[in-house]
Amino acid sequence: MTAAQFRAHGRAVVDWVADYWERVESLPVRSSVVPGEVRAQLPAEPPETGEPFEALLADMDRIVVPGSTHWQHPGFLAYYPSGASGPSALAELLISGLGVQGMLWQTAPACTELEQLVLDWLAGLIGLPERFTFAGGGGGVVQDGASTAMLIALLAALQRASGGQVARAGVERGRYVVYTSAEANCGFEKATRITGLGTSAIRFVDTRADLSMDPMALRTAMAHDAAAGRIPVLVMATVGTTSTGAIDPVPLIGPVCREFGAWLHVDAAYAGVAAMCPELRWVNDGVADFADSYATNPHKWLLTALEFDACYLADRSALTDVLSVLPEYLRNSATESGAVVDYRDWQLPVGRRFRALKLWAVIRWYGASGLREHIRYSVSAAQQFAAWVEADDRFDVLAPHPLSVICFRLRAADDVNRALLDAVNGTGRVLLSHTMIRGQFALRVAIGGCATRLEHVATAWELLSEWADIVAGPN
Amino acid sequence: MTAAQFRAHGRAVVDWVADYWERVESLPVRSSVVPGEVRAQLPAEPPETGEPFEALLADMDRIVVPGSTHWQHPGFLAYYPSGASGPSALAELLISGLGVQGMLWQTAPACTELEQLVLDWLAGLIGLPERFTFAGGGGGVVQDGASTAMLIALLAALQRASGGQVARAGVERGRYVVYTSAEANCGFEKATRITGLGTSAIRFVDTRADLSMDPMALRTAMAHDAAAGRIPVLVMATVGTTSTGAIDPVPLIGPVCREFGAWLHVDAAYAGVAAMCPELRWVNDGVADFADSYATNPHKWLLTALEFDACYLADRSALTDVLSVLPEYLRNSATESGAVVDYRDWQLPVGRRFRALKLWAVIRWYGASGLREHIRYSVSAAQQFAAWVEADDRFDVLAPHPLSVICFRLRAADDVNRALLDAVNGTGRVLLSHTMIRGQFALRVAIGGCATRLEHVATAWELLSEWADIVAGPN
Repeated sequence: MTAAQFRAHGRAVVDWVADYWERVESLPVRSSVVPGEVRAQLPAEPPETGEPFEALLADMDRIVVPGSTHWQHPGFLAYYPSGASGPSALAELLISGLGVQGMLWQTAPACTELEQLVLDWLAGLIGLPERFTFAGGGGGVVQDGASTAMLIALLAALQRASGGQVARAGVERGRYVVYTSAEANCGFEKATRITGLGTSAIRFVDTRADLSMDPMALRTAMAHDAAAGRIPVLVMATVGTTSTGAIDPVPLIGPVCREFGAWLHVDAAYAGVAAMCPELRWVNDGVADFADSYATNPHKWLLTALEFDACYLADRSALTDVLSVLPEYLRNSATESGAVVDYRDWQLPVGRRFRALKLWAVIRWYGASGLREHIRYSVSAAQQFAAWVEADDRFDVLAPHPLSVICFRLRAADDVNRALLDAVNGTGRVLLSHTMIRGQFALRVAIGGCATRLEHVATAWELLSEWADIVAGPN
Repeated sequence: MTAAQFRAHGRAVVDWVADYWERVESLPVRSSVVPGEVRAQLPAEPPETGEPFEALLADMDRIVVPGSTHWQHPGFLAYYPSGASGPSALAELLISGLGVQGMLWQTAPACTELEQLVLDWLAGLIGLPERFTFAGGGGGVVQDGASTAMLIALLAALQRASGGQVARAGVERGRYVVYTSAEANCGFEKATRITGLGTSAIRFVDTRADLSMDPMALRTAMAHDAAAGRIPVLVMATVGTTSTGAIDPVPLIGPVCREFGAWLHVDAAYAGVAAMCPELRWVNDGVADFADSYATNPHKWLLTALEFDACYLADRSALTDVLSVLPEYLRNSATESGAVVDYRDWQLPVGRRFRALKLWAVIRWYGASGLREHIRYSVSAAQQFAAWVEADDRFDVLAPHPLSVICFRLRAADDVNRALLDAVNGTGRVLLSHTMIRGQFALRVAIGGCATRLEHVATAWELLSEWADIVAGPN
């Protein structure tokens, strides 16, 4: 593709994206394709000769858009938002255009140093302690998601707990145990399987009435394991669980971890960024005093396109001890000087894109104040939604909702609630998801997408209210 | 950012990228910044209020470009190329603009089905067997890089070797062993550490004169371990080693794996895509008969922007057994129908971008014939370079070079060769890297970047030839 062709097609792609964002509200949020339908519309064999770029854009309209559930639709209130803002999308193009590979400081100095800087910026914005910054001896790294951050934390914790042995000798079956709440993200279970501990090494600690981890139950479990000769390696506390947004009591969990010498990882994938607002800074309470590692995902609530998890460690050497392998072909004077960070030692793959550009673009475009405004708007809209639900005696709100996730249900059987979810989603105007709370089916709304305004949240409530009587049937 | 602002800034970004590609040849390939220099030019604190997008582009020019080693420079001949072609860069913008998250088929059907299709296309293009395609019961998945593919293969292999036990019970220390050659990529060592086996579980098999794995030595090592009661879990063969491009004899390694019941993973990160050309199809010899998994990186030689590894498995259930965790909040009817693939079960993180769009754009723009032409051009330029080196009796070529990697040295001490590398790289016109071959320092050229033409390879040779006499000194 010549530069002139790139300019022409590039303009067309920019317009395609802008047009998509302008019209996405007119599309049904959820795709109605059936399994196999997208593939069936595409040629089974690749083209032998090149096609015009217009053909690809035409297929985006004809096949990909109808085959997609629209995460950028303002009525998308399911799971967590995926923050594809303008500046972060444009940064993706800069990343690919520059096309550097930052495995070593030496192979792309700006890629490494900008990542260090931007993650220090974010640490300051959300009130993380100095020891998670590079100046404080720790530091941040961009991972693809919070599950990977859990895996990274677990690897470092195992290395520390084993006195530096596991990287060489491997794990000992049955020796190490890890703790999280039953409400924690499924990525934690993946991480224990990947690291060779196996699911059997997890203790799912009971939760309290507010669905946060019970620190007393944690202490009991750890004491039991320690008495049996097992080593409590890591506790993962969650700040904003995936299911209900529950916030584990880190200030109470921290001392228990310390008592048993366990690594404390705080998974604040969704809620951590809320700490940018002084009035919500409390979500990170306890982190400064107790956490060994911490992760939050700007790609959820902070207007940053996938895949962007900010993962922090206080003791970076525990991690690099496990992940550093230096073959001759990567040796270089900068690494040997000890004056640089080589991010390939902080992650699973060797190579890496210039990931920091995305968050750099987002923070510079919106400014700290603009980002706080986005967080506050989401929280405010969520509180309004909760107020509507609470004021309607057909419904119950099922969990605390200090931020932007609301879980609720109709006072009716699970099947009726499922039918309500299907009916509302079936309108195509909004998309909600669901979860289970204490064995009961719950509907779930998460607010925080780039385009979602109060009017879309209001639409969700109107549809719920309208359909509630229909699905409940005549009484 | 409004749609109108996005259109305006988007045009500016497209032009910035096109301008960068047009002028990159005029820049020194390697950045001359010193550690800390990039960061020192940037504000220590994030902006409180938003800045114009122009300010970011100005800093790209003022700080990021001088702080970058230019992987897209046509004289970049180090490591492996990073293929940031026009269509793949534009696809990145489409990915972020669409902004879908494809953890489940249900959350973005086109994201999943297009990935299945495009990876089946690639499998056909490089001659992989039917069992690596979805129609054949296996399938491909996009990972971030070849190291992650190694990890994925090892997880599946451990699950199979343990009769499905490790995901639950964890690994047993000292029970499992894995094999690769001493020339294999360092990602393999990372993978053994991450999975809890530890470095001590690796047997680095001796290589033959051509630096490929010695199948006889492999067999001896496996027999020894098996006799000692250890389980040979996996052998990783490399098609195109990172150091010299050596190709392990998969047709000979395969039967040994089968004899001992070990999983055979073929890491063809660099060279696998060469098989698109019938005359180079032999690089994948043995894969069809013996491999359990296979990975190749379009982001190296196939004009696809980072991060894009195509990872194939014949038995996908071994992998999904380890990585599938289905919390209530992700339950959905499509998954329960069994009719769809949920890619979150094929990877470490839960969430994922619409990765397939990049390779789709590349294959459609260039067509299979255009991609073959790119491969052939690189091979031909490399052979020309090798011919120049071989014809000069000051130099020795140190390893076979059937593809586009050439390792060579001056007939002089290591220090003189290091000085030659520094001198040539110091011109800023080309960038070569180095490796060690049989204990000797070797210079290394890898050809295959989007913009590299024979003239740039010729420049590299002219500079080497010119500086060779200078660094060798008067004789």
